[in-house]
Amino acid sequence: MDSISSFSELTAHLTRVNCRKRMAVANAVDSHTLEAVLRAVDSGIVEAYLIGDVAAIESPALFAHNPSPFIHIIDKPDVLEATLEAVRMVKWGEADILMKGLVNTDVLLRAILDKEKGLLPAGKVLSYSAALQVPLYHKLLFFTDPVVIPSPNLLQRTAMIKYCIATAQKFGIAKPKVALIHATEVANPKIQYMQDYLDLKAAWRHGEFGDVILDGPLDIFLALDKERGSIKNVPTPVLGDADILIFPNFECANTFYKGLSLFAHAEMAGLLQGTDKPVVLTSRSESIDSKFYSIAMACVLV
Amino acid sequence: MDSISSFSELTAHLTRVNCRKRMAVANAVDSHTLEAVLRAVDSGIVEAYLIGDVAAIESPALFAHNPSPFIHIIDKPDVLEATLEAVRMVKWGEADILMKGLVNTDVLLRAILDKEKGLLPAGKVLSYSAALQVPLYHKLLFFTDPVVIPSPNLLQRTAMIKYCIATAQKFGIAKPKVALIHATEVANPKIQYMQDYLDLKAAWRHGEFGDVILDGPLDIFLALDKERGSIKNVPTPVLGDADILIFPNFECANTFYKGLSLFAHAEMAGLLQGTDKPVVLTSRSESIDSKFYSIAMACVLV
Repeated sequence: MDSISSFSELTAHLTRVNCRKRMAVANAVDSHTLEAVLRAVDSGIVEAYLIGDVAAIESPALFAHNPSPFIHIIDKPDVLEATLEAVRMVKWGEADILMKGLVNTDVLLRAILDKEKGLLPAGKVLSYSAALQVPLYHKLLFFTDPVVIPSPNLLQRTAMIKYCIATAQKFGIAKPKVALIHATEVANPKIQYMQDYLDLKAAWRHGEFGDVILDGPLDIFLALDKERGSIKNVPTPVLGDADILIFPNFECANTFYKGLSLFAHAEMAGLLQGTDKPVVLTSRSESIDSKFYSIAMACVLV
Repeated sequence: MDSISSFSELTAHLTRVNCRKRMAVANAVDSHTLEAVLRAVDSGIVEAYLIGDVAAIESPALFAHNPSPFIHIIDKPDVLEATLEAVRMVKWGEADILMKGLVNTDVLLRAILDKEKGLLPAGKVLSYSAALQVPLYHKLLFFTDPVVIPSPNLLQRTAMIKYCIATAQKFGIAKPKVALIHATEVANPKIQYMQDYLDLKAAWRHGEFGDVILDGPLDIFLALDKERGSIKNVPTPVLGDADILIFPNFECANTFYKGLSLFAHAEMAGLLQGTDKPVVLTSRSESIDSKFYSIAMACVLV
């Protein structure tokens, strides 16, 4: 398999594979979610189980004109019940992917984290990783974590790196280049997360992360731009060609992708990580494209 | 004065004002620095004192072709001596602006921080603030701090906000809108800097920051994009129209501007703040444009 270096290559790949994944959508009553789901159904990549108030699901004009044998509606007018049913379907193997509709994120997370009925195996780290398509960068950029873990500890960072590597590998990237991001390339010991970075590099040298390249601390120029990075004269095997950005904290990852979304035409796909099955969880303010690409990303990972 | 909303308006404003500022450049021997300085001299905004090894200063072809009565060369072949002389000139009022040439930042900072011979008044917070020109944003974006203070405390944040406000006001912005940036708009008390944000808002309500609008925590969408921000239904007077972004930590500010520099054609001008006089300090990997705009920014502030 060639590596997938853009979202159009991602959908082309899924079309070639031609295998619909079953997706349960918790409270699929908002038009943004429905539009993204219908696009995924029309593209042949998912079979959708829309769980929620039937009247609310069927009311958007958009839906009425799209009858499809790959859409099933399950009537659960109560939001919590709809959420629990979607989680149950994934848990019991009746669906491969879980997607958040018009549900408060906390409600969905509580259902996912439930020890008996939830989707997170004991001891697993729940995090979020994403793929960013930036028109001026030469490939997809995987990064973590813009939303779940504010300040990861070493154990969490290790898990987060592994999630990103596994994702990149599913996208066909043979030897992903991982950059541990900081403001500069200087490993200032006064910075709270710097010891983690040094430990992660040592773990990488001992083979902890498999066949990948990992370096840090690196700044954004060194990680993503050969020309600007070269000026610094910092020898790094990642130079200007990172596949994966590990950000020091969630506000850093968050502002980075939101800035590029607004001003660099970047598109993002993102998923919860650590769960048994992929969970599509995008915020209300993400675009329909972003929701659709997130579904596509889930299809590759499942 | 109309407000200055782009770097071309900034240079046009300075040309109109038509008053050269005297600038001392510490070890002005690298071609990037020289090119930016010569452009500033040619634009009529500065008179330059180039301090360093005469042979090294005069050797770049670029310089040989630009004789100007507004360029003075002071022969100090030793980098430390050149740096101390540049600082001395500013301290004694022989220059209005200090600029870093090919000097290690630590060396320059030590000279600036020297209690007797330096440029930082006792008790003042040394920080860095910058103006970012992003083609898809409708005005300049002032922000702090991408480089000096890793995790500011409340006292430092208060000073940093005031520096940005003073800068924006010098750019003619009558009532700047300040956004305290976070990953979301939720004031999660578990986040280390959140109490600072709440305290800063309280201080603003009590008039601490003068005639400005200040709100936070806000994410990048709420601060900079009316459309995406509106989806969240978070009432904020800043909505999509921030002039100033206060970042929670320096890696956040740093990755934000570097991402936009690489992928959104953003240009940055930046200065040290807290010193008696403006200090132009840009890193090697910044563009010549960026160095030139930083000089222009210093001219407005002095």
